[in-house]
Amino acid sequence: MAANTSIIMRIELDKTTGSFAQIAGIIAQAGGDIVAVDVIRSGKNSTIRDITVDLQGLKATDISDAVKAAPGIQLINVSDPTFLAHLGGKIEVTPKMSIKTRDDLSKVYTPGVARVCMAIHENPQKAYSLTIKRNTVAVVSDGTAVLGLGDIGPEAAMPVMEGKAMLFKQFANVDAFPICLATKDTEEIIRTIKLISPAFGGINLEDISSPRCFEIEARLKQELDIPVFHDDQHGTAIVLLAGLINALKIVEKSFSEIKVVIIGIGAAGVSIIKMLQTAGVKNIIAVDREGAICSTNTYTNPVWTWVSENTNAGSVEGSLSDVIEGADVFIGVSGKDVLKVSDIKLMAQEPIVFAMANPDPEIEPDLAEPYVRVLATGRSDYPNQINNVLCFPGIFRGALDCRAKTINEEMKLAAAQAIASSVNDEELNEQYIIPSVFNDQVVPLVRKAVIAAAIETGVARRIPPEFR
Amino acid sequence: MAANTSIIMRIELDKTTGSFAQIAGIIAQAGGDIVAVDVIRSGKNSTIRDITVDLQGLKATDISDAVKAAPGIQLINVSDPTFLAHLGGKIEVTPKMSIKTRDDLSKVYTPGVARVCMAIHENPQKAYSLTIKRNTVAVVSDGTAVLGLGDIGPEAAMPVMEGKAMLFKQFANVDAFPICLATKDTEEIIRTIKLISPAFGGINLEDISSPRCFEIEARLKQELDIPVFHDDQHGTAIVLLAGLINALKIVEKSFSEIKVVIIGIGAAGVSIIKMLQTAGVKNIIAVDREGAICSTNTYTNPVWTWVSENTNAGSVEGSLSDVIEGADVFIGVSGKDVLKVSDIKLMAQEPIVFAMANPDPEIEPDLAEPYVRVLATGRSDYPNQINNVLCFPGIFRGALDCRAKTINEEMKLAAAQAIASSVNDEELNEQYIIPSVFNDQVVPLVRKAVIAAAIETGVARRIPPEFR
Repeated sequence: MAANTSIIMRIELDKTTGSFAQIAGIIAQAGGDIVAVDVIRSGKNSTIRDITVDLQGLKATDISDAVKAAPGIQLINVSDPTFLAHLGGKIEVTPKMSIKTRDDLSKVYTPGVARVCMAIHENPQKAYSLTIKRNTVAVVSDGTAVLGLGDIGPEAAMPVMEGKAMLFKQFANVDAFPICLATKDTEEIIRTIKLISPAFGGINLEDISSPRCFEIEARLKQELDIPVFHDDQHGTAIVLLAGLINALKIVEKSFSEIKVVIIGIGAAGVSIIKMLQTAGVKNIIAVDREGAICSTNTYTNPVWTWVSENTNAGSVEGSLSDVIEGADVFIGVSGKDVLKVSDIKLMAQEPIVFAMANPDPEIEPDLAEPYVRVLATGRSDYPNQINNVLCFPGIFRGALDCRAKTINEEMKLAAAQAIASSVNDEELNEQYIIPSVFNDQVVPLVRKAVIAAAIETGVARRIPPEFR
Repeated sequence: MAANTSIIMRIELDKTTGSFAQIAGIIAQAGGDIVAVDVIRSGKNSTIRDITVDLQGLKATDISDAVKAAPGIQLINVSDPTFLAHLGGKIEVTPKMSIKTRDDLSKVYTPGVARVCMAIHENPQKAYSLTIKRNTVAVVSDGTAVLGLGDIGPEAAMPVMEGKAMLFKQFANVDAFPICLATKDTEEIIRTIKLISPAFGGINLEDISSPRCFEIEARLKQELDIPVFHDDQHGTAIVLLAGLINALKIVEKSFSEIKVVIIGIGAAGVSIIKMLQTAGVKNIIAVDREGAICSTNTYTNPVWTWVSENTNAGSVEGSLSDVIEGADVFIGVSGKDVLKVSDIKLMAQEPIVFAMANPDPEIEPDLAEPYVRVLATGRSDYPNQINNVLCFPGIFRGALDCRAKTINEEMKLAAAQAIASSVNDEELNEQYIIPSVFNDQVVPLVRKAVIAAAIETGVARRIPPEFR
């Protein structure tokens, strides 16, 4: 988490009264850790340096005030590498060829472009070969459920969507453009996405709050002929399932025999339940703030009703602690500290715990570790991080390459299996059930599995050469 | 217009029965002009070449059939460089930095990005420094008035919008993204653009048919705090005014004394009238299919009513030929062949004719040339091309750099004067009243003039360093 907690100080040092060793000493004494030094200018009497300091959990002013107070040192500026990385935004829109001559101009613009326009007008499917549609995804948010920050609005959501667009391009060469909407109205969001869809080959919904996200995704899937994928729901579910496939290998249990308790029935929760069922899990109990969701109760939200009718066959009621007894797997997509050590002790032997609340898991990893066989979280500073970055680039790469009409359950299951398969049997252990986000095998594996599943289920509109 | 009229033929030649000279002869005899030859593979008995042929006005099959019929020659494939330039689309979305390490990832995405999001949430103006908003324009069309092709729909409009995005980036380093809307409803277009506006620093409306374009632009200008600019209206008007400033220098007449007749009261026509008035022209007669627009008539369209009340002070009526007598300047933004030589003969001495209908001007340039002092068209194959590419990159560069709230008449006039000023007095002549689209002085000149006018009129929200 260095990026979150480092600063860059630009410092001018008067050579006659001080030395760099002195600055280094002051920073160390204040509790900071120097991670980089760049000399910006070196003169006869003074030098200017940029010093990057890891704050080690301290505040920026704890370090900068100490530096400022030292004689012979002038603190010119303090900046923050995370903010610097965001200056002017993180993506750009670039031409694939440069326009050097009038001849180039008349190819890519008037008058030549007119023939290309007419070819698409006569056959709209040609948009896939002659425009960016073939490779472009809209990353759409209304800013209502951004990270763990809640409803912060469309402008404030942009840095996340831009980051996502960067990851799409870098990991899977997908062109993604952020669209942040100034409305929270379900119908207006659906309508707007439909109206802007002609340019796009897919829609990645992002950080839209529950329960509106269910209706928005379901309707768009029905009403558009391009893939629509709410990453908070399915990305998390797919990567979790990948981790669970490998975790079950370690404990030698099968999907059909395990009991799963899941807490948090938001965007991700419902998709996880569906994915687990697609994978063959029979015994699932879903828990929300009110306790276990149970068919003996009635729910106003149709999604809760669906959950109540399709899980908890034994109609057990009560709190998490009441229903967790004998569970093989705990899945948390809720909030901080809802799982206690005493709950884990009630689970079956070799418990598997996925505590994915962000930034603070359902149980402190250090507390849980002595009592579980496999532990996964959403955090990058512990092993087994369940990170959507493992899924969305590859699943859209596959969907775009076969011009899939939709992303269905079979394609999602195939993506999960592909992610799981990138950890081989020799590598597999309790600390390594899921690959690193920088594992470059993942995207090609996911792509291939997704295309195969799309062809198999009849939703592919193009068969890539290697599948012919 | 080579791009419009050339083909690439991939040809396999059997060395035992033919020679390249033979192919060249066949192509020449068929009327084609070989402009490039690339050897793709050369074997013992045969060679494969890509031969680029300018069609010289013939059909592709006129050439390819002749080649096909020749003995010892196999025509493998005929392709079209314009279509090749469009394969997979013409733009891409690229990260400004690559994500190589977990530390990079935590800066541009979770968890680091959360602090940046919250900074914008607390102060939405920070979107200008921390997101792409500062440099990004939406190029929005509904596909109803694309080039001279009419209502061809949003998918078919994409190649034009992508071309425009290329030009924005190459000429002015503006990031532009194409948004093609699947609706023609005025209110829905306005609403959709408002909803997607948070990511953008400006809106370039494009190829939206008249009269809806007037309402859409006017409402968005009122309801958004970022510049909204319908290029078909104002881009054309600004570049035309630039040309007219220089043409009047040649004939030594002033804006206040000239009589202007303009035919075609569509998107561009009304904006041209307003620009001319801003520049000081008093005597304008507007003509449409029905004849001169006159305050003695009533019009259902409010735009026509405005024109009737603000031009033609003498309330003259009649056809173009009836009202053109004594006109110093003719401006055509209508259609083919509406201006006759006999009309030009009625004009004042040293007539100036802007015949800008595309692709066929209001009068054949060759017919008009003997009778006019200055002639300008929309075509690249005659001198004095009135091309919007001279305007939109620089005007948005300026507007973005000073965070203008709007693009007002003063900024447009400043842009026109800047474009005109890029042709100096030594260079100025009848054949050169307007710079080339590749003149790299134009964007900096336009930018500077636009920023100065924005500051002067109080619509700039940021003063760039060189203006402080």
